[in-house]
Amino acid sequence: MAKISHVSPLAPASFPELPEIAGAEFATVEAGIKYAGRKDVMLARLAPGTSMAGVFTRSATRSAAVLDCQEKILTQSDDGAAIIVNAGNANAFTGRNGMEATKAVTGAVAETLGIPEARVFSSSTGVIGEPLPYEKITGKLEELRSGLSASNMRDAASAIKTTDTFAKGAATEVEINGKPVKIAGIAKGSGMIAPDMATMLVYIFTDAKVAQPLLQTILSELTDLTFNNITVDSDTSTSDTLLLAATGASGVEIVDENGPFRDALHTVMIDLAHQVVRDGEGATKFVTVNVTGAETNSDARTHALAIANSPLVKTALAGEDPNWGRVVMAIGKSGAAADRDLLSIRFGDILVAEKGWVSPDYREDDGAGYMQQEEIDINVDLGLGDGKATVWTCDLTHGYITINADYRS
Amino acid sequence: MAKISHVSPLAPASFPELPEIAGAEFATVEAGIKYAGRKDVMLARLAPGTSMAGVFTRSATRSAAVLDCQEKILTQSDDGAAIIVNAGNANAFTGRNGMEATKAVTGAVAETLGIPEARVFSSSTGVIGEPLPYEKITGKLEELRSGLSASNMRDAASAIKTTDTFAKGAATEVEINGKPVKIAGIAKGSGMIAPDMATMLVYIFTDAKVAQPLLQTILSELTDLTFNNITVDSDTSTSDTLLLAATGASGVEIVDENGPFRDALHTVMIDLAHQVVRDGEGATKFVTVNVTGAETNSDARTHALAIANSPLVKTALAGEDPNWGRVVMAIGKSGAAADRDLLSIRFGDILVAEKGWVSPDYREDDGAGYMQQEEIDINVDLGLGDGKATVWTCDLTHGYITINADYRS
Repeated sequence: MAKISHVSPLAPASFPELPEIAGAEFATVEAGIKYAGRKDVMLARLAPGTSMAGVFTRSATRSAAVLDCQEKILTQSDDGAAIIVNAGNANAFTGRNGMEATKAVTGAVAETLGIPEARVFSSSTGVIGEPLPYEKITGKLEELRSGLSASNMRDAASAIKTTDTFAKGAATEVEINGKPVKIAGIAKGSGMIAPDMATMLVYIFTDAKVAQPLLQTILSELTDLTFNNITVDSDTSTSDTLLLAATGASGVEIVDENGPFRDALHTVMIDLAHQVVRDGEGATKFVTVNVTGAETNSDARTHALAIANSPLVKTALAGEDPNWGRVVMAIGKSGAAADRDLLSIRFGDILVAEKGWVSPDYREDDGAGYMQQEEIDINVDLGLGDGKATVWTCDLTHGYITINADYRS
Repeated sequence: MAKISHVSPLAPASFPELPEIAGAEFATVEAGIKYAGRKDVMLARLAPGTSMAGVFTRSATRSAAVLDCQEKILTQSDDGAAIIVNAGNANAFTGRNGMEATKAVTGAVAETLGIPEARVFSSSTGVIGEPLPYEKITGKLEELRSGLSASNMRDAASAIKTTDTFAKGAATEVEINGKPVKIAGIAKGSGMIAPDMATMLVYIFTDAKVAQPLLQTILSELTDLTFNNITVDSDTSTSDTLLLAATGASGVEIVDENGPFRDALHTVMIDLAHQVVRDGEGATKFVTVNVTGAETNSDARTHALAIANSPLVKTALAGEDPNWGRVVMAIGKSGAAADRDLLSIRFGDILVAEKGWVSPDYREDDGAGYMQQEEIDINVDLGLGDGKATVWTCDLTHGYITINADYRS
């Protein structure tokens, strides 16, 4: 793993205050999986009555832990639940041994906490293809159990980091039926980030009471508007996992798909997704690509991703070059419908190109000045219909090459 | 355009001997389109009786010259033909002015050479979105006409370069029905290279006699095995053009789709396609990705391109890191069929992974030693069927970032 001593220039000023979520407790420990001198395993215990929902990578080579979670997630249960996560080893592409290691960990957690194994969800993140030394985890479970506390979520955010340069957390509170409902989440991820999730682990907790099918529906829909629309390098991890636990401890029951709970959850998911992009390997610019006027939402997303994933667009952003020709190129190659003479391109509010050519009012100095900002908006209107999409990405810099061309990062 | 003083380390030792193709003459000139002190326009005149075939970018924002060529290419004619190419300005996304500039150039060439305008094919390559100063080209046509000679193909290869670090040419000779047939071609391109062509201009000439429909069929099929299977950065140009001119001057008529002519043309096209990859911006490794055992050829190509375009695979290659986990990741994300436990991965002849895990015989030192070579083969067998594909690419280095993050490269 490349040593990155500095924190991303796009990092938030500080880690946010995370409220305690009644029914959710956390503990972390130094298990020495790969890293020395830091906590690298986290355990979360969820109280009886907690509903769990999850979204996972669609990779054909997904990890044992992901396969195990997918088998368990849709089952309703009142037996409580647990989440155990290690950093430093992905336990992916580790053959039959992979599932054995996962089952050894989840089985031991179940025994330690006195809950069914079917309610223990696990994630592993780090190097692919090396056997997981699971005894290092199971040997620490008593220590983890005795350290469980509702106030430890921030430590959990640190324990799951790999190449991350900062710990990621977000929270919000919303009043529903006159009662407060809390939502707080943590995330890790900075490379191998692309739609269909990312090398990303995200755990979100709420004290709302939500039945599993509804919780799953809301989570899946919001994922398509948040984590599935961020991209750092177009690569997709074998381990991506997003788990949402609703403990119900607030006593506020959510029965509507839409409404304040969904909106509040959306806020937390957007915040965490942006933090992952802000920690993109080597990133110096936070870039929002808005595409409107496409024939369909799907077409808009195809164009937005073509722009956000284009190495030539991303290197131009790194060079603070308002090279709108490369945006034209990316739209052209995306495969979705576009008409050269109907589309317009804006950098922020600056109209750059329209009617098949550079705008007569556009001055190169304006574009160049805009590109010096740390946050860049690329706004494309296709002039064809009502389809729209927003994708978030970062620039492609020497830092990305340095991090990833190091031997066995 | 970034100044690159050095030649790609993967460049051939020298420019090849190109035979004269009877019926094809070339001239070059300094027109000062963008570059100073170098030839930047080339003209080719093809004798009456020449058949023309072409393949072009499928970009939705393709250039005026490409649109003009596409309109003309399928028409049979015995009136001869011409090709006029400028470097330094792509005349793409230049609105109505773009087609006017293209028509001004092709019209003037037609008048100068005394051939129909419908037989004049043009290409423009360079910066997108700036108006083409076409008078600089039309003002040089008399000089070009007087310089036409069958011996100038090598100069033409130099005149069409943009960010290329070396001129690209290839040739072969084949005996058909006891008579020699010659094929020679030139190409340019080093960035914005991806399937559906590349920022690539390729012109191939032969003295075989081939009717237009057959010439087009052979060219299109071979393009799918050559230029459409190379990728530098997954970006696709607005200007990609491949033209094949068969002058017929050898008197050898080709009537079969398969046979020695097709094989010889394939050789020249593979050679030129590899040279484009070898000039990939910042490239230090020439990489061949062979995928076999896929359910279909199309699936094999999807997997091969996912590996070849993955920034994480490409940076690992740059770092000489035998990071086969990233190859697993790329296969997993490609979307084509794969079974983790059936696939195998080899670096050259070295078996790295099989049966869902690292091979028991694999030694990391072997992989690391292999990665130090300049030419790397990544061989993946999926164990599912007979589908296969080969894709060529290069690594992703600091050089690519430097070239493309410079202001307005």
